[in-house]
Amino acid sequence: MAGQRKAGPSSYFDPARIDTLDPRTAELVRRRTDALGPAYRLFYEQPVQIVRGSGVHLYDANGVEYLDAYNNVASLGHAHPRVTDAVCAQAGVLNTHTRYLHEGIVRYAEDLLSTLPPELGHVMFTCTGSEAGDLALRIAKHHTGGTGVVVTRNAYHGVTTEVAAISPSLGGLDSLPPWVRWVPAPDAYRIDPVALGYADLGEWFAAQVQAAIDDLAANGIRFAAFVADSIFASDGVLADPAGFLAPVREVVARAGGVYLADEVQPGFGRTGDAMWGFVRHGSETAPFVPDIVTIGKPMGNGMPIAATILTPEVVAEFGRDMRYFNTFGGNAVSVAAAQAVLDVVREERLQENARVVGASLRAMLGELATRHAVIGDVRGAGLFVAVELVVPGTDREPDEALTLKVVNGLRRRRVLLGTAGIDNNVLKVRPPLVFSRTDAERLVTELDATLAELGG
Amino acid sequence: MAGQRKAGPSSYFDPARIDTLDPRTAELVRRRTDALGPAYRLFYEQPVQIVRGSGVHLYDANGVEYLDAYNNVASLGHAHPRVTDAVCAQAGVLNTHTRYLHEGIVRYAEDLLSTLPPELGHVMFTCTGSEAGDLALRIAKHHTGGTGVVVTRNAYHGVTTEVAAISPSLGGLDSLPPWVRWVPAPDAYRIDPVALGYADLGEWFAAQVQAAIDDLAANGIRFAAFVADSIFASDGVLADPAGFLAPVREVVARAGGVYLADEVQPGFGRTGDAMWGFVRHGSETAPFVPDIVTIGKPMGNGMPIAATILTPEVVAEFGRDMRYFNTFGGNAVSVAAAQAVLDVVREERLQENARVVGASLRAMLGELATRHAVIGDVRGAGLFVAVELVVPGTDREPDEALTLKVVNGLRRRRVLLGTAGIDNNVLKVRPPLVFSRTDAERLVTELDATLAELGG
Repeated sequence: MAGQRKAGPSSYFDPARIDTLDPRTAELVRRRTDALGPAYRLFYEQPVQIVRGSGVHLYDANGVEYLDAYNNVASLGHAHPRVTDAVCAQAGVLNTHTRYLHEGIVRYAEDLLSTLPPELGHVMFTCTGSEAGDLALRIAKHHTGGTGVVVTRNAYHGVTTEVAAISPSLGGLDSLPPWVRWVPAPDAYRIDPVALGYADLGEWFAAQVQAAIDDLAANGIRFAAFVADSIFASDGVLADPAGFLAPVREVVARAGGVYLADEVQPGFGRTGDAMWGFVRHGSETAPFVPDIVTIGKPMGNGMPIAATILTPEVVAEFGRDMRYFNTFGGNAVSVAAAQAVLDVVREERLQENARVVGASLRAMLGELATRHAVIGDVRGAGLFVAVELVVPGTDREPDEALTLKVVNGLRRRRVLLGTAGIDNNVLKVRPPLVFSRTDAERLVTELDATLAELGG
Repeated sequence: MAGQRKAGPSSYFDPARIDTLDPRTAELVRRRTDALGPAYRLFYEQPVQIVRGSGVHLYDANGVEYLDAYNNVASLGHAHPRVTDAVCAQAGVLNTHTRYLHEGIVRYAEDLLSTLPPELGHVMFTCTGSEAGDLALRIAKHHTGGTGVVVTRNAYHGVTTEVAAISPSLGGLDSLPPWVRWVPAPDAYRIDPVALGYADLGEWFAAQVQAAIDDLAANGIRFAAFVADSIFASDGVLADPAGFLAPVREVVARAGGVYLADEVQPGFGRTGDAMWGFVRHGSETAPFVPDIVTIGKPMGNGMPIAATILTPEVVAEFGRDMRYFNTFGGNAVSVAAAQAVLDVVREERLQENARVVGASLRAMLGELATRHAVIGDVRGAGLFVAVELVVPGTDREPDEALTLKVVNGLRRRRVLLGTAGIDNNVLKVRPPLVFSRTDAERLVTELDATLAELGG
């Protein structure tokens, strides 16, 4: 797991610049570094001390309000009362684990499974998306008897040893163990499949994955799984053309591997078209059905809960040979929070809101692109939106330095968002799903002003 | 990670016996199996459907009250109002992650570190003990440049791929990868170190670990870490003689490895003598100081929170080369729960209660042993107590069948506890730390009656 992270600029606070902070902030940063050690990072040149949240708004220690266009965990909005009430009520009564019978977890599991293709029959609960991905790989390897895993160039699938090993975005390509192969991400802005001799992006991407599987085989490594975040968040948010994952699904099945859809980021309605990000890569007549789905982040609106969802076939041998217990996984309080989230997503029609507001936001950003030549591309699905910044007059040369300036400029203008992509030149807009058209307008107005300020 | 679990009897519910359950319970078990799949287990021949908890008591769907002598997670007692209040208050205000500044996590980290030896300077937050152990191994391997890990025969350190690989209690010895070596556990009831040519149990144990390290070296595997749960819970609860871990600590340091104390089970005052289980293996003049400590289970009284605590030296390279972020690790709500737990452990003097009530309980169980020949040994520290059952008239032959009957007999008498040990013949008594002398008397009375009933 050794590996150097990329040097140079980043959107994180540089500890060497602590003296540029106001004394109270500097003191808290100093205490934090002393207590938490050197591996932690803080967002922004000027870290934000958040003390309160409500809906799409966060408030710092001075009472200053920020528009949150970043946090996909508080998907229903910060401090949603339905989640708070559910958590309080359950915490005051009981919080135990899954080796006692409990009606709540069974009811939630049935409800959750009803939102997924019927082939995905079982759900196993963990606390984090990392644990869900780790368990998914354990089961995929047990099922296939193989170890080989294929991921995309800048994939991120979590922080346990096993999923960090399939996350080149963490430690770089040098950190990948011999059982991992990477393929370029299906980036429609930068890849012209026809010029490369393929019918479309899907065929091109499937060919990359097939080549990786063949290379594993040539090295005597049996193929276990292809793993992809269905929105390719850390590869730069790659959504279109919808359907481009269908051919790779077939390649994985033919090779006897497991298709693992990492829905930690796109799941729970964010992509607007459907509850799950992979759905838009299938159709009514040919639905897209992964063998395993992992979910997490927004599942409990901040309460730790995640899950691995599987076809009975994939988990059969594991269930026979091993047992599974995760002390906090599926605890009664986290499940109560998750049930509230699922209820509110439906009642408040948040998937529909993501679709409508996301489309508006992309249209406004597209208009902005006509006035700011640095905006090379605007893309996304629902409320998962990307704005790619390039050097004008070049062939899409990524402008990381400008991107970091924009992120910090927006932070000064009280709009919070982050970056994505292998070149770190993509603005990642991923707000709570209650984001309104007015919020989208505020974001676009502030981005417009920030770009003007920076001469972009 | 393939590997067969032990066949034969277990303390889990056998799904083939679903028709022996009352119709309502059977229906919930059936729905649960359909939704959660084949890898989940339920405690007891007759699973318990818990709906409410308070202090040391749990209540089932029919309102029947049980004495909880099993659950170490709800260490302050079930549904402790201080934890509930802290969780409600924080959930209603803000629940974000560690890339914004937050006073709560810094204050808690400082408070937690003040309970540990000063050499352990940094704390990194995860959601589960499994994640804490996984992160600890990632860091230990990064620090030492080695991969070799030594554990005990029936160790359990968690469920991620990495820590499941060092947990022979999960998949058996056949499941251990080439970089893991196991040593017999330091079992004072079964091992006579003097007869084996050693001064004491500590010297004997250190020699086993040294031999394992030598064997790694002989196979070209560089030693990274020795990992031990300081109370050896799954090896059968091995506490005495206090101090027996001191020699192995030296062996590990001399070999250039990391000593990882897994305090997920013994931590937070349970062993009675100190806040942390490893402390009783040192002395005032020669304190016992691990390089890394992992904590979890009782840390948030059921809210998912765990941590990896390290010396600055061990984490320096990792902090330089990698970044660390765990979305839910150290979230504001879990930290608020953890702060309440630490406050209550001190204010209600739970460590002292564990020491006093634990000693009483062991004394009463010792008296019981004089009347029931099946009780081979009574041992433990604080409120982590073991009762080992053997076949009378034999040389300590383990009686697993009787042990399972006792566990199920006690469940019928409304006392909940579990089993431990490689031969599954040890009753594991590990109640919430608010367990009183009266609760201890009730436990002993019911165990007496159960043993009498079973002819033991």
